[in-house]
Amino acid sequence: MTGQELAAAIKTPTLEGVQRAMAKIADILPKTPLLPLEVDGATIWCKAEMLQPIGAFKIRGAWHRLSDLNAAERARGVVGVSSGNHAQGVAWAAKKLGIAATIVMPSNAPRMKLEATKALGAEVVLYDRATESRDAVAAGLIAQSGATLVHAFGDPWVIEGQGTAGIEIVEQLADFGVSGPDMIVSCCGGGGLASGLALACPDADIAIVEPEGWDDIIRSLEAGEILPVKNLLYPTYCDALQTPQTYPVNFEILRQRVSKGVSVTTQEVTTAMRVVFEKLHLVVEPGGAVALAAVLAGKIQPKGVTAVTLSGGNVDLDLFAKMLTQAA
Amino acid sequence: MTGQELAAAIKTPTLEGVQRAMAKIADILPKTPLLPLEVDGATIWCKAEMLQPIGAFKIRGAWHRLSDLNAAERARGVVGVSSGNHAQGVAWAAKKLGIAATIVMPSNAPRMKLEATKALGAEVVLYDRATESRDAVAAGLIAQSGATLVHAFGDPWVIEGQGTAGIEIVEQLADFGVSGPDMIVSCCGGGGLASGLALACPDADIAIVEPEGWDDIIRSLEAGEILPVKNLLYPTYCDALQTPQTYPVNFEILRQRVSKGVSVTTQEVTTAMRVVFEKLHLVVEPGGAVALAAVLAGKIQPKGVTAVTLSGGNVDLDLFAKMLTQAA
Repeated sequence: MTGQELAAAIKTPTLEGVQRAMAKIADILPKTPLLPLEVDGATIWCKAEMLQPIGAFKIRGAWHRLSDLNAAERARGVVGVSSGNHAQGVAWAAKKLGIAATIVMPSNAPRMKLEATKALGAEVVLYDRATESRDAVAAGLIAQSGATLVHAFGDPWVIEGQGTAGIEIVEQLADFGVSGPDMIVSCCGGGGLASGLALACPDADIAIVEPEGWDDIIRSLEAGEILPVKNLLYPTYCDALQTPQTYPVNFEILRQRVSKGVSVTTQEVTTAMRVVFEKLHLVVEPGGAVALAAVLAGKIQPKGVTAVTLSGGNVDLDLFAKMLTQAA
Repeated sequence: MTGQELAAAIKTPTLEGVQRAMAKIADILPKTPLLPLEVDGATIWCKAEMLQPIGAFKIRGAWHRLSDLNAAERARGVVGVSSGNHAQGVAWAAKKLGIAATIVMPSNAPRMKLEATKALGAEVVLYDRATESRDAVAAGLIAQSGATLVHAFGDPWVIEGQGTAGIEIVEQLADFGVSGPDMIVSCCGGGGLASGLALACPDADIAIVEPEGWDDIIRSLEAGEILPVKNLLYPTYCDALQTPQTYPVNFEILRQRVSKGVSVTTQEVTTAMRVVFEKLHLVVEPGGAVALAAVLAGKIQPKGVTAVTLSGGNVDLDLFAKMLTQAA
């Protein structure tokens, strides 16, 4: 039994767990803005998670997980696997709690993400995305230290933590005098955020968006079983969403709740990044722009009060400038 | 007596006026985030005003002014003068209130600002920044229509409205468990925001920052009298701060309250824009980055709990990409 299978066996993510996570997160993190954006005459509510201290929603799940560890677990440290946003979330939470953190990151992760993770005091262990399994590298580290694995998506606490973004969306819509959301469009890598949002908002339609070539969850939902990505070398700028395959704890929620899943092209992602720059004055990384990209491209039709996730914002300046000026 | 002299004669901006404006603005605009940024071990609190619906703090003063007009005034319309942010603020408020708005804008205003102002339904009248007086152009329009002038900074309502950003800073610091601010560093064009913040936070040090070559208020404070900009053709990317000279209503407040004034170079502005991109994941236009630029450059030493204004975010993508990649 792997660490994740064990975690899933001892804890099932629930709405009550999301609510408990929300109480903890509200104590340390202000709500990120929910910004209205007009798209073809409709208002799309954009959850600006790049404004978290680490530039991405991943801080939510990491805080819920690490703050629930007992003293003995904290003393043994934590190991995370991540291309960079979850890495920073775990490193941030570990630093705040005085826990040693080791993060397994792909050697081709964006420079900004590698540097930010190290700057938060975490030890970084690199692996080759094409030839090595990050889970195997992490398992080796855990075997040595007895550290707790904090998986990027396949962890009940992480799922519940990410779901707190959904609780905030509900509360912020109410502040605007709006009831909802009727639909949430979520970026989707391994499905941690999407499954958390599904738990948080039991009455909302959940739509997921993956980048072209990395649409394993869409294919899995169609097949009714977990399928891996076909080609681990398929080129994409959405490094945050390059997940080889989802985990059962995510899949069980998503297959009950996802009403639609689509993939988006690099061009569609670039258009969304540009709209976010010009209309919202925010920096969104490619992987964080896919949900809005799907709406702007007409691949997902908003339904009633529709919210989209915008996260994260950790993109190297050169790539950002190159993508957006090419689109102009 | 000009319209502004008349306005100043009939109304003096006050803290009570700022508080009344705050009550009106809280009804329609969520607080913009106050984001902590670590600079040399100190926390600088950044007021992210580019997240206003028009991408700049100018929406505050425009709303306070226009919503205070009576029915007869509303029927005659409003005229604004602006390089683009105040233009959008007036256009936004006018649209919401059903008031006709005409905006006098420089012919070389950023494309994004011109388009956004028109998109909000305002009529735009262009003038040549080097050879024409925007105030004279506005006066001509007002003579025809009887419209109310909504000046970009020399208006008591506008000053009070901009000051509401200071009220929010105080409240948001309290949410973080912090008392303050001890110092506010404000971008400064004509001094509308800086004088409003001074009223809002009577116990705070007020520091102002202007772009190189457009340091008329700094020179005016040193001279003890209002002086104009020396060279209206001095090149700058800070179009939002290209104000020929301040007005008495601003100057009277600033000379009692400003503890320090400095100017910043294009290179210093560019560095600040890059830090905001990488650390806060926000888009700030050159004129909106000058306050942080002065702190990062060491030209202004933070004092106790220090807040800086970040506003606006209305910068053309090509210029943004050019400035930031050159700095890399």
